[in-house]
Amino acid sequence: MLCSLQIAHSSSITAIIKERRGKDLGIVVSFDNDRTQKSLDPLEDIVVSDLAEVNRLILRKMDSPVSLIPQLAGHIIAAGGKRLRPMLTLASAQMCGYTSGQRHIALAACVEFIHTATLLHDDVVDESLLRRGQASANDIFGNKSSVLVGDFLFSRAFELMVEDGSLDVLRILSHASAVIAEGEIMQLATTNDTETGETTYLDVIKGKTAQLFAAACRVGAVVASRPRVEEEALETYGMNLGIVFQLIDDVLDYSAEQMKLGKTVGDDFREGKITLPVILAFRRGDEQERAFWRRTLQDQIQSSDDLEHAIKLMVQHNAITDTIKRARHYGSIARDSLGIFKDCQIKHAFHDMIDFCIERVH
Amino acid sequence: MLCSLQIAHSSSITAIIKERRGKDLGIVVSFDNDRTQKSLDPLEDIVVSDLAEVNRLILRKMDSPVSLIPQLAGHIIAAGGKRLRPMLTLASAQMCGYTSGQRHIALAACVEFIHTATLLHDDVVDESLLRRGQASANDIFGNKSSVLVGDFLFSRAFELMVEDGSLDVLRILSHASAVIAEGEIMQLATTNDTETGETTYLDVIKGKTAQLFAAACRVGAVVASRPRVEEEALETYGMNLGIVFQLIDDVLDYSAEQMKLGKTVGDDFREGKITLPVILAFRRGDEQERAFWRRTLQDQIQSSDDLEHAIKLMVQHNAITDTIKRARHYGSIARDSLGIFKDCQIKHAFHDMIDFCIERVH
Repeated sequence: MLCSLQIAHSSSITAIIKERRGKDLGIVVSFDNDRTQKSLDPLEDIVVSDLAEVNRLILRKMDSPVSLIPQLAGHIIAAGGKRLRPMLTLASAQMCGYTSGQRHIALAACVEFIHTATLLHDDVVDESLLRRGQASANDIFGNKSSVLVGDFLFSRAFELMVEDGSLDVLRILSHASAVIAEGEIMQLATTNDTETGETTYLDVIKGKTAQLFAAACRVGAVVASRPRVEEEALETYGMNLGIVFQLIDDVLDYSAEQMKLGKTVGDDFREGKITLPVILAFRRGDEQERAFWRRTLQDQIQSSDDLEHAIKLMVQHNAITDTIKRARHYGSIARDSLGIFKDCQIKHAFHDMIDFCIERVH
Repeated sequence: MLCSLQIAHSSSITAIIKERRGKDLGIVVSFDNDRTQKSLDPLEDIVVSDLAEVNRLILRKMDSPVSLIPQLAGHIIAAGGKRLRPMLTLASAQMCGYTSGQRHIALAACVEFIHTATLLHDDVVDESLLRRGQASANDIFGNKSSVLVGDFLFSRAFELMVEDGSLDVLRILSHASAVIAEGEIMQLATTNDTETGETTYLDVIKGKTAQLFAAACRVGAVVASRPRVEEEALETYGMNLGIVFQLIDDVLDYSAEQMKLGKTVGDDFREGKITLPVILAFRRGDEQERAFWRRTLQDQIQSSDDLEHAIKLMVQHNAITDTIKRARHYGSIARDSLGIFKDCQIKHAFHDMIDFCIERVH
């Protein structure tokens, strides 16, 4: 899936951040140089030097005498990367006043390794999909390589955590990893099931996306040895930011604006993924409309103009705008969770991050 | 792959232990009740009550509100299981005099979880294989489910280790996990490559198989807080036992006796896996024979009588008997590594285990 994050945090600065999935298996950052010199968003400005160290550590720890590992890893690294999740760890550590060491660097790399491993595993193609004749997302390296290199990165993440030596960190990230897997499996079970409700959908995106955002933030507070209330505040921020991120991601896949901009849309529709825009349109539609959703998403019988019709139904029932409203709700929770921290540059950047995630749709 | 372990540790006792891979994704134990009442091998006798607790813990920890997880897990559990690796942890802990708690139970379960996760991931079918029209090993649940439930079990293993709280254990098992992945990836890279030498092959089987045997044993010494020399002795035992196990496994895949017994043979041949019997036959053969190996294993052009011809060449060049000789060599190292432990029932059982692994071929 391809999604774009359009950032406009001042009238003069516009950065387009692309999160590319599939072939690149990584995250690509490109800046709209026509409108601005070289802009980084506020959070990136704050962590820029730490992030460079994270990148160096990632490169070093991805190395292995088994050449396929640095090969595939190099492919991911070459794609650059916004490194949203490790940025959250770095910024959280900074906001909590951590200045005494380099633990946040290593743990930010762990977070990115776990994320990359889940990306690699997420892209494994099911036989059923192959049978349907769909192209595989990981056709460069094959299923088996993706799975095994994912396993390697995942194990390497735990080795790094053990080096760090904090059982609290290990607890947070091993739990997050289990919850991510549960979320992904739950998503697999709800795919093509138009009966899926909003609560189940929320559990899916909390698991597959938001849990790692939450853990990434919490770990920052842990290295700074802050009181539990601050750990929990940052975890709540991360969890709700992650929900916002995924909700908007799911909106973008049905965005007429994105289509006009030449971006790929409709991946979720083609795969029969049940996201909130679908859930709202399905529940608000009449029996004829539900038959349409069942045919296209459940039975996977689709014709070329079905995506356009799906978007039309969503617009008609305010399914898109209301999904964005839901995102704003979780954004508010994220913002309020940071209320206990004193006013500072990082806190503002954290606030801005919520708005950026939501404003991707405009 | 299917392999059989024929145990005959006294004239009256014969147990046939099947390790079934593929559809069952687990390990099936069946006893030859015609010849004996109910027999357990010596190691199993020693750990039988601990093993029952491990099984209970595995069932409990495999549970999840996401029903696909206990479903797939139940499928594995229902298959029973010899649980060779957790047995090594339990027996090692006992030999080191650990009696003060239940840590060995939890860690034995971790070891089995890691093993099961690697089995699940190992069975993921590559697109290239599918394109060749071969049947998938995990056609019940699909690639994606296998990968994700594997990830869940892997994460759950780390959660269990964190509960245990020993950074030494976490270090051993996170390192083992990374090495297993490296071994599997190395195997992927050597598949179809008839140039692969014995040293590379040894690295592959040390990684994919022996490292977890080694870690399983070492963890037993760690919970008993034994001196490093005992930890290392047990690790050496496990490593070399694992090498023996895999060497004999690779022999069995070309065993004429196995074929006569109606067992599946030739899986490695069909997949183009480069194992020691192949390496020896290739290096000892003439140019015409090497052309045969290149056609069948490298180019994957095989006809129905090629397997029989392959076995003939192996026998002709003593490739089978010399692979068994190599196994005996590693078996001797395993046996000698235990020299520092006082004579006891468990030590004898550990010795017997080596012989059992080798005697599978007779």
